[in-house]
Amino acid sequence: MNPRLHIPLPFTDGAALPLTEGQQHHLAVVLRLKDGAPVRVFNGQEGEWDARFSLQGKKAFAVVHRQRMEQAPVADVGLLFAPVKKGPVDFLAQKATELGAAWLQPVRTRRTIAARVNEMRLLANAVEAAEQTGRMDIPRILPFASLETAVLALRPSTRLLFCDESRQAPPLKQALLARQADWGLPWAVVVGPEGGFTPEEAAFLKDMPHCVPCHLGPRLLRADTAALAALAGWQMMTQADAL
Amino acid sequence: MNPRLHIPLPFTDGAALPLTEGQQHHLAVVLRLKDGAPVRVFNGQEGEWDARFSLQGKKAFAVVHRQRMEQAPVADVGLLFAPVKKGPVDFLAQKATELGAAWLQPVRTRRTIAARVNEMRLLANAVEAAEQTGRMDIPRILPFASLETAVLALRPSTRLLFCDESRQAPPLKQALLARQADWGLPWAVVVGPEGGFTPEEAAFLKDMPHCVPCHLGPRLLRADTAALAALAGWQMMTQADAL
Repeated sequence: MNPRLHIPLPFTDGAALPLTEGQQHHLAVVLRLKDGAPVRVFNGQEGEWDARFSLQGKKAFAVVHRQRMEQAPVADVGLLFAPVKKGPVDFLAQKATELGAAWLQPVRTRRTIAARVNEMRLLANAVEAAEQTGRMDIPRILPFASLETAVLALRPSTRLLFCDESRQAPPLKQALLARQADWGLPWAVVVGPEGGFTPEEAAFLKDMPHCVPCHLGPRLLRADTAALAALAGWQMMTQADAL
Repeated sequence: MNPRLHIPLPFTDGAALPLTEGQQHHLAVVLRLKDGAPVRVFNGQEGEWDARFSLQGKKAFAVVHRQRMEQAPVADVGLLFAPVKKGPVDFLAQKATELGAAWLQPVRTRRTIAARVNEMRLLANAVEAAEQTGRMDIPRILPFASLETAVLALRPSTRLLFCDESRQAPPLKQALLARQADWGLPWAVVVGPEGGFTPEEAAFLKDMPHCVPCHLGPRLLRADTAALAALAGWQMMTQADAL
């Protein structure tokens, strides 16, 4: 398969779209593409297009010429997570992108270790995963905010799939089956930090009007595993063409 | 919570079980535990026990004294995977352990890059994940073998959940619902390498008597993501106390 690039610019037949330095390096140096080599491009809105790698002096472009695949919608589900260490956060951004999260919202909790989050790094990981797995759009990266601020900023109809470590909630499958009428609405998977939400944070989440608590089984999953298992499970249960 | 150690020896009240050098270093140097500090231990068969860290000269022991939790069974599902690069394999062993895989079988395929697999490293990752997530046993690590050899060595009743990238198969949920009568039997999640199985390998798998092909949605998941999504999905669909 030809290399696949995210270029967030409008596509028209024959347009020469400038590549970033990183893209140029990857194509010209790592992959050693020659001028005119075929590539694939997507901009998040107009599907996937055939294009050609074009070197003009020191600058590189993708010259687009034809749409090859339609834009594919993603389900209306996002991930609200407390960032862990750098490696796992990179991993989480990649995997959540592959599993079809529409947006990623890093949140600060009482037990979150990270004092800040590099949103651009989250985005870079999401772009890389989208490029490599054929996804047609890039998940939105929402700015790092407190748990409370982030939850209050959600659209009012959003269902909060709250992964509750206390095991008082029903298993994921039962929790989703009980809310089948809501499957077409927006959803947010909510996963706490290592060490879990505090009782106050858990109470805040449960008091939200559309909270759907669930548990993820007999083992205590690490935060990133819990996020991915819940996202995969939600996709599988609620979407006809799963995952 | 007290530190949790896997010590694969029989437990009896008052027994002093020797720690490995790695465990001793972790407890004495990293965590700076003092002689007599409480720890938790499990051996894969007798649940979880309270114990005390004991330093006797240069050697360290765990002195066990009481069972605190019963042994918990895992579902009869394993993972047959083509190893990818080192980092992702470590990750896969950890996550599959958290998600309850009973065994891990690395396999050689036509497009597998790895010429050999470090089974001890797989095991170390599985032990670490089991220790940290409260799992009561360690998944068995089966020796690296060709796809064909590994499949033929499965118990004859094993259902092969073949994650088929060709998208000719039904989605995971439909594939599992159609085999509900088989949920209590042994299962193996089968995931190919980056680049996929060859047509011959796919045909070999489909010709097995108990092959259950499925697809994992519209995006082409990376091999490790596919393995974890399928494992999480299988647990959620087929096990009452999901994941």
